[in-house]
Amino acid sequence: MECGEPVEQVRLTPRMSVGELVSALGRAGAYNAGSLARGADIYERMLRDKKTVKFFGLAGAMVPAGMGGIVTDLIEKGHIDVLVSTGANLTHDIIEAIGCRHFHGSSICSDIDLRHDEINRIYDVFLPNEAFVRFEEHMQAAFAELDEKKTWTIAELLLHLGQGLDRGILAAAARKGVPVYCPAVADSMIGLQYWLFSQTSRITVDAFRDMQSLIDLCFRAEKTGALIVGGGVPKNFILQSMLMTPNGFNYAVQLTGDRPDLGGLSGATLDEARSWGKITEEAQAVTVYADATITLPLLVAAVLERMADD
Amino acid sequence: MECGEPVEQVRLTPRMSVGELVSALGRAGAYNAGSLARGADIYERMLRDKKTVKFFGLAGAMVPAGMGGIVTDLIEKGHIDVLVSTGANLTHDIIEAIGCRHFHGSSICSDIDLRHDEINRIYDVFLPNEAFVRFEEHMQAAFAELDEKKTWTIAELLLHLGQGLDRGILAAAARKGVPVYCPAVADSMIGLQYWLFSQTSRITVDAFRDMQSLIDLCFRAEKTGALIVGGGVPKNFILQSMLMTPNGFNYAVQLTGDRPDLGGLSGATLDEARSWGKITEEAQAVTVYADATITLPLLVAAVLERMADD
Amino acid sequence: MECGEPVEQVRLTPRMSVGELVSALGRAGAYNAGSLARGADIYERMLRDKKTVKFFGLAGAMVPAGMGGIVTDLIEKGHIDVLVSTGANLTHDIIEAIGCRHFHGSSICSDIDLRHDEINRIYDVFLPNEAFVRFEEHMQAAFAELDEKKTWTIAELLLHLGQGLDRGILAAAARKGVPVYCPAVADSMIGLQYWLFSQTSRITVDAFRDMQSLIDLCFRAEKTGALIVGGGVPKNFILQSMLMTPNGFNYAVQLTGDRPDLGGLSGATLDEARSWGKITEEAQAVTVYADATITLPLLVAAVLERMADD
Amino acid sequence: MECGEPVEQVRLTPRMSVGELVSALGRAGAYNAGSLARGADIYERMLRDKKTVKFFGLAGAMVPAGMGGIVTDLIEKGHIDVLVSTGANLTHDIIEAIGCRHFHGSSICSDIDLRHDEINRIYDVFLPNEAFVRFEEHMQAAFAELDEKKTWTIAELLLHLGQGLDRGILAAAARKGVPVYCPAVADSMIGLQYWLFSQTSRITVDAFRDMQSLIDLCFRAEKTGALIVGGGVPKNFILQSMLMTPNGFNYAVQLTGDRPDLGGLSGATLDEARSWGKITEEAQAVTVYADATITLPLLVAAVLERMADD
Repeated sequence: MECGEPVEQVRLTPRMSVGELVSALGRAGAYNAGSLARGADIYERMLRDKKTVKFFGLAGAMVPAGMGGIVTDLIEKGHIDVLVSTGANLTHDIIEAIGCRHFHGSSICSDIDLRHDEINRIYDVFLPNEAFVRFEEHMQAAFAELDEKKTWTIAELLLHLGQGLDRGILAAAARKGVPVYCPAVADSMIGLQYWLFSQTSRITVDAFRDMQSLIDLCFRAEKTGALIVGGGVPKNFILQSMLMTPNGFNYAVQLTGDRPDLGGLSGATLDEARSWGKITEEAQAVTVYADATITLPLLVAAVLERMADD
Repeated sequence: MECGEPVEQVRLTPRMSVGELVSALGRAGAYNAGSLARGADIYERMLRDKKTVKFFGLAGAMVPAGMGGIVTDLIEKGHIDVLVSTGANLTHDIIEAIGCRHFHGSSICSDIDLRHDEINRIYDVFLPNEAFVRFEEHMQAAFAELDEKKTWTIAELLLHLGQGLDRGILAAAARKGVPVYCPAVADSMIGLQYWLFSQTSRITVDAFRDMQSLIDLCFRAEKTGALIVGGGVPKNFILQSMLMTPNGFNYAVQLTGDRPDLGGLSGATLDEARSWGKITEEAQAVTVYADATITLPLLVAAVLERMADD
Repeated sequence: MECGEPVEQVRLTPRMSVGELVSALGRAGAYNAGSLARGADIYERMLRDKKTVKFFGLAGAMVPAGMGGIVTDLIEKGHIDVLVSTGANLTHDIIEAIGCRHFHGSSICSDIDLRHDEINRIYDVFLPNEAFVRFEEHMQAAFAELDEKKTWTIAELLLHLGQGLDRGILAAAARKGVPVYCPAVADSMIGLQYWLFSQTSRITVDAFRDMQSLIDLCFRAEKTGALIVGGGVPKNFILQSMLMTPNGFNYAVQLTGDRPDLGGLSGATLDEARSWGKITEEAQAVTVYADATITLPLLVAAVLERMADD
Repeated sequence: MECGEPVEQVRLTPRMSVGELVSALGRAGAYNAGSLARGADIYERMLRDKKTVKFFGLAGAMVPAGMGGIVTDLIEKGHIDVLVSTGANLTHDIIEAIGCRHFHGSSICSDIDLRHDEINRIYDVFLPNEAFVRFEEHMQAAFAELDEKKTWTIAELLLHLGQGLDRGILAAAARKGVPVYCPAVADSMIGLQYWLFSQTSRITVDAFRDMQSLIDLCFRAEKTGALIVGGGVPKNFILQSMLMTPNGFNYAVQLTGDRPDLGGLSGATLDEARSWGKITEEAQAVTVYADATITLPLLVAAVLERMADD
């Protein structure tokens, strides 16, 4: 066994940039700070590698926490080629895009009082019910525009929704031609609105058909990389898409607060994914175990700073 | 503020039963041991309440860890009316049902060596690739029996799969008429096999249509309760199914290793669900924060013991 | 790489004993349930091995959670030869021994209201201030009996305290001649009471002198084993005691809710301890990552059941 | 219940400073990112409040991870009035101060191979045994200088050690007259070296006597504040020091990867500390739950940036 570079004690300087901080954490190199710095290195290489198709996985209640703006900007800058999201993040993205807001709240409060005041809680974020009233109006109108004759895929449905919005993640993805996959879309307010719509209409949305375009893309891609926020369906759906191909992801960075010893895929190490062939044996991969609302902005800001320095 | 009962120091007795241990933890009453004991009380009341429709949510890699047998037995005993699962648990259930096995392994190993030896790792469980070869044969044959003329729901697809098996969760559910919902089924090996099948065939499985029967059931149910293992899609899909009804869950117990402060629904407290109306203001609800491979068998064994004592 | 035994799906039986449950978890063998079962196997071997000096580390607020009774009973049965504890656990042990109680409370409450009502909170356990009034009386009287002429060690001080009590951990340890080490005793209510006492008296308690008897014991011991609840000072103090000897622990089981990736010793794997020589290369060792209020009673009850079956 | 400010979606800008990022997280305001931003606000107010005595708690293996430099710089800048540390951090500080280094390593490796190669592992940091050889020489020489006639306090011992070093935490503290408390010093390599020294010498170090100066200081202080990294003895020792006074901390920020539901003090919320009177009812206090190797540099850099802008 051999020792690597010496740990450099971190020195903070006034007005240091986020990129400088992350580089200092890389020279310290330990625990999740070290993983974060390695993650930034890998993500930078992935973004710079022109041959790489860039996946982004979005799980956890990231949009209510203000992280949606980072995803939107990454799409706008061309740093995301394929987005896989939970339905909840897309629901909250639509809520913000139609002009409703999430609010600073508190995790220490009476949920029964909140219920009486028609405020829904997401840890310490508050969302008034009124947002869902406006969401319903918007969604029912959007669904009413769908062509009943064709069988839709979920990505087509989300493209349609994005085309009807002028800001946020779905809008940016629609504008930039970035496919948005959301296999569990039924498991969200979008799903509930669709159920409501289906009481008087009859459109078929196919549960599986998006896999065709996704797996085709995985077959064709020379190289692939993924930045995965949280775990859940987006992580698994991204990684499993390689299983039917001879390929595996070449770059992978996961930002999660989960833990590996519980056995679930959300917290599993990316090394485990090597045994399955989801990522290649040589893949550059690291998991940063900490709240993604802290690590996502740190990592992305550091990498954008490096790329702006070119 | 008032103090409750005094904490009773736990005394262990030789050959004490699991039910006796959980009762002792209830008298101690603190931290997650106290929550576990309260969870057992709630789950017992839920199972004994004849008016209650009983949901079960299954997330995390529970079947590879040997927890599938508990779910199967609960179905057989009539203690589950509606099952919502991840696709992965159903995949591994089918793998065991067709005679393949998961194996004791280690989390400290070379995943590259495992890859060479064609063994897939789930933390410290090993699953040889060969199981997926047999899984593919089984699934392709099962899909080939589907009627191409109708539009299937996911639950119908899973019922068909269960009818072709003679043991395990899907088999028991099919036998007992328990619907199995799996909104993210595309996000699993079942989904990948379906994609393979769809290369030569054309069956439509609707992504949303299962919501009809589920929400109908929620409207009709006098009372409802849920035992939720892990978080993910099953937790959210169960809880959100009440949002379109005037009802809410009356009983809820969650067993998870996640944590609330990350904001994601998987680790959210059940109190948070009160603000949304997913559970009622008066609902008896508790979350036990610990590895569910420990807490699920403890809780179920204790409750079955109490019910056997009648 | 090779697969081990197949995972056996867990089957629960009515009135199954805790030992039977833990054995079933061992046959399932995965994640922390598998670790718990291996921990029981190791702890059983350790208790049966007559050549082994048996350490017990006690950290975390275990006594307020009712776990003190288990420790007391293990001492009474001769299963603990050396106890290393935090000061807080000994404080709460004394509080219970002098007849005060901890009470079931709630973690969701106003801490300001609690303050006004003179109730101290430990997560969901409540402890009225009155207990500390009686604790003060008891401690000041106990300290007043100390011989001012000698320099005391912390273990001698704790032995004196134990001799003045008739139940609980310190009392049992005093009765059975089990040394109790508590290097951070100043960091507890015992320390604060000592400070109060020292305003009018002048006794010297040496910070280091206990290391002599502990390290002597480590030198002399043919074999050693440790059951470590939580991490903190007790874990490190136990493990480091071997560093000055040519020996290492032969058996080690840790029960903790911490995690390894933060770098701290509390959550570190026991494998890490092999690199330091704190445990031997061949040591049987496992960490169970879950709330110790659940895993401690499970593990101890299972092992006592097996030993009672002899 | 009322909603606060709207959540602002985070926008990253090229070369944004750490302070700008933390302010953006404050406008987003959710989960641990929101807590981090509130923590920075509180810490800034605490550092600017001239009436406040500023405590710093240092637990977890922070020095091996390169976080010691931040603590040293805070002492140099006059932002720490009282330091409470684990013995391990001081051990590793001395190791670096005498010219030995910690090295980048890996958490995925054979600890038995490391043992054979005489390398000690701290998660993914490697420390060759040779460092402890030089540490022993240094410590034995330093102890030999101690006056055998007096009874030493631990802080006096640490001051002596700091006076013999020219860089690092202990050196800076000695130079700046910042007392360093370490009640569990026996539980560290410093303790083991002291034990070795005591084989041939006889100096008494009192376990409790430091409490006098600390509690005196707490009585005298007009206001007090604490930045607490990790939990353990430093957190408790800082907070308990107020219990004998009519005061409580006015500012408190904790950075930890622990969790509250396990009941232990390390992960306990600071609200819990209000019930005890350790912090005042009106205290500004927040806990940030994430790896402190990420949150400490973020928080300190942001606050230093704001203070440099004056």
